[in-house]
Amino acid sequence: MMSFPSPPAGCFAGPLHRYAVRAHFEDTDLSGVVYHANYLRWFERARSDLLRLLGIDQRAAYEAGEGAYAVADLTIRYAAPARLDDVLMIETLAEELRAASCSLHQRALRDGILLAEARVRVGFVGPDGRPRRQPAAWRAAFATLVATPVPTTPHIAEHSGQT
Amino acid sequence: MMSFPSPPAGCFAGPLHRYAVRAHFEDTDLSGVVYHANYLRWFERARSDLLRLLGIDQRAAYEAGEGAYAVADLTIRYAAPARLDDVLMIETLAEELRAASCSLHQRALRDGILLAEARVRVGFVGPDGRPRRQPAAWRAAFATLVATPVPTTPHIAEHSGQT
Amino acid sequence: MMSFPSPPAGCFAGPLHRYAVRAHFEDTDLSGVVYHANYLRWFERARSDLLRLLGIDQRAAYEAGEGAYAVADLTIRYAAPARLDDVLMIETLAEELRAASCSLHQRALRDGILLAEARVRVGFVGPDGRPRRQPAAWRAAFATLVATPVPTTPHIAEHSGQT
Amino acid sequence: MMSFPSPPAGCFAGPLHRYAVRAHFEDTDLSGVVYHANYLRWFERARSDLLRLLGIDQRAAYEAGEGAYAVADLTIRYAAPARLDDVLMIETLAEELRAASCSLHQRALRDGILLAEARVRVGFVGPDGRPRRQPAAWRAAFATLVATPVPTTPHIAEHSGQT
Repeated sequence: MMSFPSPPAGCFAGPLHRYAVRAHFEDTDLSGVVYHANYLRWFERARSDLLRLLGIDQRAAYEAGEGAYAVADLTIRYAAPARLDDVLMIETLAEELRAASCSLHQRALRDGILLAEARVRVGFVGPDGRPRRQPAAWRAAFATLVATPVPTTPHIAEHSGQT
Repeated sequence: MMSFPSPPAGCFAGPLHRYAVRAHFEDTDLSGVVYHANYLRWFERARSDLLRLLGIDQRAAYEAGEGAYAVADLTIRYAAPARLDDVLMIETLAEELRAASCSLHQRALRDGILLAEARVRVGFVGPDGRPRRQPAAWRAAFATLVATPVPTTPHIAEHSGQT
Repeated sequence: MMSFPSPPAGCFAGPLHRYAVRAHFEDTDLSGVVYHANYLRWFERARSDLLRLLGIDQRAAYEAGEGAYAVADLTIRYAAPARLDDVLMIETLAEELRAASCSLHQRALRDGILLAEARVRVGFVGPDGRPRRQPAAWRAAFATLVATPVPTTPHIAEHSGQT
Repeated sequence: MMSFPSPPAGCFAGPLHRYAVRAHFEDTDLSGVVYHANYLRWFERARSDLLRLLGIDQRAAYEAGEGAYAVADLTIRYAAPARLDDVLMIETLAEELRAASCSLHQRALRDGILLAEARVRVGFVGPDGRPRRQPAAWRAAFATLVATPVPTTPHIAEHSGQT
């Protein structure tokens, strides 16, 4: 009998990271659907999970005074609303790696239907608030993701069931 | 290979419900620890999960115009802070069942250490905002929880590892 | 003696809407600065205030079953961080009016320094979740904003002190 | 013409602090009323404003490594729901001052009607996370509040219009 549940955790399918969330009361607003800003919280949870799976310890880096990631810019498109109790799959693909930043493509899907889609660029920032090169080990970890070939069929068609 | 992760989900150990959460950036504030109000969000997620495991569909009830639970009162004590990336176990015990309300005892633990503890009374409220008897099936489901004997050793000692 | 404070409220300077917010503990995260998703909450407060000043009653419209605005897409760029207790000015300009949607340019400034800048398109959505024409009175109110000439010097230079 | 709005700010009427908030979309949930945890955010904003009016600079104290307030325990009772666009008056009275903590009584009212009421104890905590005496100047500032006689008619009756 599973009497100790696991914390939320995602996983990789090749370079694609998947992370599941459920829409709670706190996420909805009086229009009955999930408040738009809350997708950004879900996407950030997924990115943090992706980093953890890569062996990157954000808290240790922050406490050691190395720095932290900060969102530099973000574009999001809302395609369909999410409702209370919906289970959403957050998919994340690292698209581009630079010395001090990384760009990711993130999508929220419910049963293969696209609800929201974002492009996010995060920069590494030192304790002084200035951009800084990502730690070498982090870049190396990200580099494996970006280098992994994505199947020739577009990943959207492949995993959304919308072929 | 687990390429489709499961959404967060808790489970019962007898009448005790357990639900795991992880502290994310969104949960912390500049003092480096989890912002006090966010425990209420975690406790609410755990209560919603408990209801779902009991077969109670809050969204269907709300959409059918039956009503929804609303917190009537709540007492919380903060014993120790949670930090980024901490995995917390949220434990919930239904303590008292009335016609239109239910009282629960909830705790947040990290590795058996108590971080916060709350008593929460939720009332069922109709679309008109007035207290209303809980649906009969919901009361019956809750009744099984409240009737289930808790081990004679106090549950706090039992599962916190603080004996 | 002012013993009853006023609620937060913005105002227009020509077509430009200004709304002031203060960064609270709830807005920050452990990196000591405002969490990126919270700018979206501030921008939404400003848009709601703008609507109220135009005489648009979102709650009445929603309760009457007419519908509500939903964010369709949004692009945000973070230029500099906000910190606890900072007072930010949120500036909003309506840029384009269509039958069922409206595009706005929003900026968050501290002492004339740009911290974040967004373009937001909001669509009017009926209770069935489908796009719907905005109520005629709302379109008329918006139309006055979009028609009001913005000074020939770009508004960014004009009010940011960055000339 | 007021073309630069003021940031939200409260004021004192004797020892009673008042602070006005407005309920925004972000505060509501799908049941159409304000989500219970969000009252804690409002109450915290009011306490921070009270501190600022007393001349206490929380950010400077935190950045100087002196410490910060943390909620130690809290009891809240929800009497009636708040809805979108409601203006609420948050009233705060300091009730008890100790070396390392302070107890406050806080209420949220709409047009004199009590919506929620809380007792909150906040403790001063050093960077090591341990309780610490409040800075002497802060205690002195609080002491003036606690010493100020509250009118003989109970303040609840006096300002709630519930006589």
